[in-house]
This record gives sequence, C-alpha cells and structure tokens, in this order.
Amino acid sequence: MHQPPATARRVTIGDVARHAGVSTTAVSKVLRNAYGTSAHMRSRVHAAVDALGYRPSAAARALRGRTWTVGVMLPDVRNPFFADILDGVTEHLDSTDYQLFMTSGCDDVASEARVTEAMIDRSMDGLILIAPVSPPRHLERVAQTVPTVVIGRHSRSARFDTVNDDDFIGAGLIVAHLAALGHRRIAHIEHHETDRIRLAEMPNALRADGYRHAMREHGLGEHIDVASTSYTRAGGQHGAKILLDREDPPTAIFAGADVVALGVLDALTEAGLSAPGDISVAGYDNITLAGIRAVSLTSIDQGGHRIGTAATRLLLDRITDPDRQATQVKLTPTPVVRGTTGPPR
Amino acid sequence: MHQPPATARRVTIGDVARHAGVSTTAVSKVLRNAYGTSAHMRSRVHAAVDALGYRPSAAARALRGRTWTVGVMLPDVRNPFFADILDGVTEHLDSTDYQLFMTSGCDDVASEARVTEAMIDRSMDGLILIAPVSPPRHLERVAQTVPTVVIGRHSRSARFDTVNDDDFIGAGLIVAHLAALGHRRIAHIEHHETDRIRLAEMPNALRADGYRHAMREHGLGEHIDVASTSYTRAGGQHGAKILLDREDPPTAIFAGADVVALGVLDALTEAGLSAPGDISVAGYDNITLAGIRAVSLTSIDQGGHRIGTAATRLLLDRITDPDRQATQVKLTPTPVVRGTTGPPR
Repeated sequence: MHQPPATARRVTIGDVARHAGVSTTAVSKVLRNAYGTSAHMRSRVHAAVDALGYRPSAAARALRGRTWTVGVMLPDVRNPFFADILDGVTEHLDSTDYQLFMTSGCDDVASEARVTEAMIDRSMDGLILIAPVSPPRHLERVAQTVPTVVIGRHSRSARFDTVNDDDFIGAGLIVAHLAALGHRRIAHIEHHETDRIRLAEMPNALRADGYRHAMREHGLGEHIDVASTSYTRAGGQHGAKILLDREDPPTAIFAGADVVALGVLDALTEAGLSAPGDISVAGYDNITLAGIRAVSLTSIDQGGHRIGTAATRLLLDRITDPDRQATQVKLTPTPVVRGTTGPPR
Repeated sequence: MHQPPATARRVTIGDVARHAGVSTTAVSKVLRNAYGTSAHMRSRVHAAVDALGYRPSAAARALRGRTWTVGVMLPDVRNPFFADILDGVTEHLDSTDYQLFMTSGCDDVASEARVTEAMIDRSMDGLILIAPVSPPRHLERVAQTVPTVVIGRHSRSARFDTVNDDDFIGAGLIVAHLAALGHRRIAHIEHHETDRIRLAEMPNALRADGYRHAMREHGLGEHIDVASTSYTRAGGQHGAKILLDREDPPTAIFAGADVVALGVLDALTEAGLSAPGDISVAGYDNITLAGIRAVSLTSIDQGGHRIGTAATRLLLDRITDPDRQATQVKLTPTPVVRGTTGPPR
C-alpha cells in the first residue's frame, strides 16, 4: 500500500519531539503544563508546535477516552474568593486543551452527591471540589472514580490531593496585628460546629483554633472570648450584639470571614458605634468588597489565584498518573491591614 | 415505492451539501462551528442553509441521545447579578433531570467562540448565554445548532429567545427619582461604545439612551451630561473626576452600573466629598454590595432570579420544540432607593 504523501500526514507529538530535540514525554509535559519543565524546554517545544502547526488529534483524544473536560464544584458563585480561585484554574487551563465547566454543590451533602455523580456521568477527566461539605467517605469514593483535588478542606486522604491556605496561621496573623496595636480584649466570631470530622477539617474550625492558640501565645489567654454563630452576615450581626452586650466588651473583634465582618460593621452602625474609633474589626478572605474605600476592611488574603493554579497543576498531574501519592499543599496567607483596625480607645 | 412529496420531506444535511457543492462532513463542521473551515466554505454552506431553510432535525438530535445537560456561559463569575440569574436557573432546573454546567466566556469574542464550541462539542442539550459580546452572526450559528436563550442583550433573532430587563425604562426610573428630589444637573457615566450593533443591542447603550430620553421628558434636556468611560470601578472613578471638574458640576450622578457607582463613591471620598450630602449617586443592578449599610447605594433591581427562571422555562420549551417562534421577554425593573441619594444641597 502507498504511504500517503507527507503533506497529508497529521503532525504527531513525535514530530514535535524530534523537531524540538526533546523526548515525547517532555513534549507531553509541556503541553499539559506539568511540573518539572524548564523555561528553555518550554520555549523549544512551543517553537516546534508553532513551526509544525501541531494540534492534538480529536480522534486520538476520543480513542484515549478523554473528554478534555475539568469539572469544578463550588459551594456558591457569590463568594468572590471562589472567583479568585477560578481565575487561577482558568489561567492554567488556558494553555492546555482542557475546558473548564463548573457547577454549584450548594453547600449541601445531597446536592454535592448529585453534582459529583453528574460530573462522573459525563466522563469528566478530573474534578476540583471547592470547600465540599460531604463526608470523607463520599470524597474518597469520588476520588477513586476520577482524579480529584480538594480545595478549602484540610482532609488527609491517600486518594486525592488538597490545596489550602494555612487557616491556623492566618488567624494567628490577625491576633498578632491586633495585639501589636495594643488590644487585649480581642474576641472572635466563629461558625458554630459540632461535627467531629468538620472540627478537624473545616477552615472555620482551624481559624477558631488558631485564634485561641495565638491569644495564649500573646499572653492573652484570659481574654479568649468566642461568639459561636455562623459564617453569614446575619451571623456577624448576631455575634457582634452578643459581644457588645458583655459586661466588659471587647476592644477588637476578629470575625472568621469577611462576610461575617460586614455583619459586625452593620451592627456597629446600628449601635451608633464605628470602626476603628470605638472598636476594631477584622475579617478573613480579603473579598473584593473589603478593598472598597467605604468598607476598607482589615482582612487575610488567602491568595485564591495561587490556590487555583496549584490545584490545577496537581489535577493535570493526577490525570496523567492517577496512582501517584497524594499531596497536601498548604499556602501561607497574607494579612491586609486597612481602615477598620487601629489602636484601642 | 412512492417518493414523498417534496414539501413534506425535511431538508437534510445531504441536501445542503449538494446545494453548496461540498461534503456533508464540511457542512457538519461549519454548522458545529468547528475548526478547519475556510471563510469561503462557511459562506457557501450558510447560503445553502438559508436557501433551503435547513434546520437540524430534532429527531436526529434525539437519536444521538440527550445528554440532559444545560450549559450557561457568563462573562465572569464576579458580578453578583449573574449569581442571581444562576439562582433562578438552578431553581427551575432542580425539578427536572437537567444538570447545569457553567463556564466563563470572559467577555471576549474569541473566548466566546471557544466556549460555545466546547459546549456544542459536548452535546449539551441547550445553552443560556449571558451578556454575550459575539457578533449576531455567531449567535445565530450557535442557535442553529443547539437550542439557545440569550440573556442581557436586546437581540432580535428568529432563532433564539431573549430575556432582558427593560434597561431603557430602568434608566428613566433613576432620572425620575433624582428629578423628584429636586435635582436638575443630573449627569450620567456610560460605557463607551462605538460599534453600531452593540449600540443597538447592549444594555449599557439602552441605559444611556433611556437617561437622555428621560432627561428630555423631565424638561432637563439642556442638562444632559455624559462621561463616557467604562463599566468598571476605575471607569467610575475616572468618570466622576471628569464630571467634578466641570465648571458647573452635577448635583447627582447616575452611574450605568453599581460597580461604576462604587468607583464614583471612591472618587468622592478622595475629593473629601460625600453622598448624598455633596452629591447624589445612583447605580444600576442592585448587587448585594449595594445593600450593605456602609455602602447603601440607590440602584435598580433587574430581578436576576426572575430573569433566570424565565430564560430556563423558554430553553426547556425550545429543547422540546426547536422550531417554535422566537420570543423576546422584557421585564420591568424596580428602583431601590437607599442612602446615597437625597435632595441637592
């Protein structure tokens, strides 16, 4: 049989490797945007891709059974912190052939079960689950079926990777900032939690732990004061009212999340008080809103973009090598000091 | 065997191919908007499609199997208004077997082309496109391939349905509110637009038109004053600076979007001014942030939830009956008066 003329033949990954003078594995790594490629190798491979007009064959993809789809489950689309994570994911995927589709797990166990099943059912190649509330057994089962990375939950699993900011450290940074300003009666508003597993894995629980630990470290153990409400604006308003009603109210409130801090600010305004004049207020997450002049909320930046990028890199790695050892990435957050914190009156 | 009469026979993809003088594969590629089609081939195929009145058969689609997937393309996940729309979509889909997946079109024509192709490529059953910026021809082509509903763009198409708030009326409601407070020098910050189609279809252009029209209706035609920047916070800051530098600065600013109004408030703070004491400020969209006490922005509520529900209802209808007449739904928005507007000094 005749060999088709060279011009009709599709450019393969082998051609790219030969042209670039590197291995096909190296080409594959560069195209997947994987770890362990040098800038030099990347530029050679991209030059070869451009020179040869290489495009991965749709047929080859189908044969391998990949759908080139990454699914992201997020609790809701309202929290701007998740948008930062998605930016990181998108930026990393943009240089690959993967398409991102996201859907909401609605912060609810039954919804998360439905959504993860739907993503598996559509043969997605990998999943990123943001702040899932499902029991560990469900997460393990999902990860057994499809390469999975979990963000915003300090799980320890052999089957999936996790990427988190260090919430324990983050809470300590806020306490340190307030203590340095001269505050002693620093109170905390936490998300009420009784479930044993969540107390070990959820960011909110680690922030409350970090607060208590840091208070003791600064010799303020006797001033530890926690209002246990919820990570919502109403929870912040309620928590602030509880704390302001104390016989000896705090001079500073560390709310476990920015949305909670907004509720605290509402409650202060209602009580005819202001921050930081009457009381200092700090949040956590550094949502876009925190940076608006009219709000100007002191907060903790988790670096959502960085978290998204790290998670995506781990996921593409895991799609290639589903059996590799699980990795737990913990990134150190950054305090962002703004107008709602100052010295005590 | 009898040949069925020509009028009863459905036009097939083969007919289109013969009429255009290309292969059926080529037709399919053009209709799917796939890579590797020349401009020449596209124009021939589209001419044949138009001449024969070809529409892909619903039965043929059903044979290929439903995927029970609805795709939503949104410009970004940061604007809380889109979250309201998604709530409406989700609520309506929850009672069906459809699963929602969303992805960002990045407010960019090339990205939107990639994303719509990806959704079609994954055989999604129907698409909801939120505030797309693609040229009408692209939207038509997408809608020809898959049942489509467009939100946030006042298109007039025979192939897809649209759901919008009445932006013209909405702008008029803000002008009426400010005029009733006694303002006469009411200025507007618009999103700069020169493209003829966008000037006819985009909500921002209709809001600017509505502002001008309402000013004249209130006998304030001589005070029409528009700063043309962009629908961003920076655009709001810049627009406010332009307007404050006028010899006779306005006593009220109607920003075309809440995010713009936030930039205006930033600029006022910077200039040592406040709203409504020195100048009244109103936005549009009623984002969550507008309701926060520290911001308390007068705005226009488009009813995102209602828009999402209406769009989903139309889409499921269209999936069942792809050939039904296109519907344009226009919902009347509601003004939400808060703390940033008051009588002029």
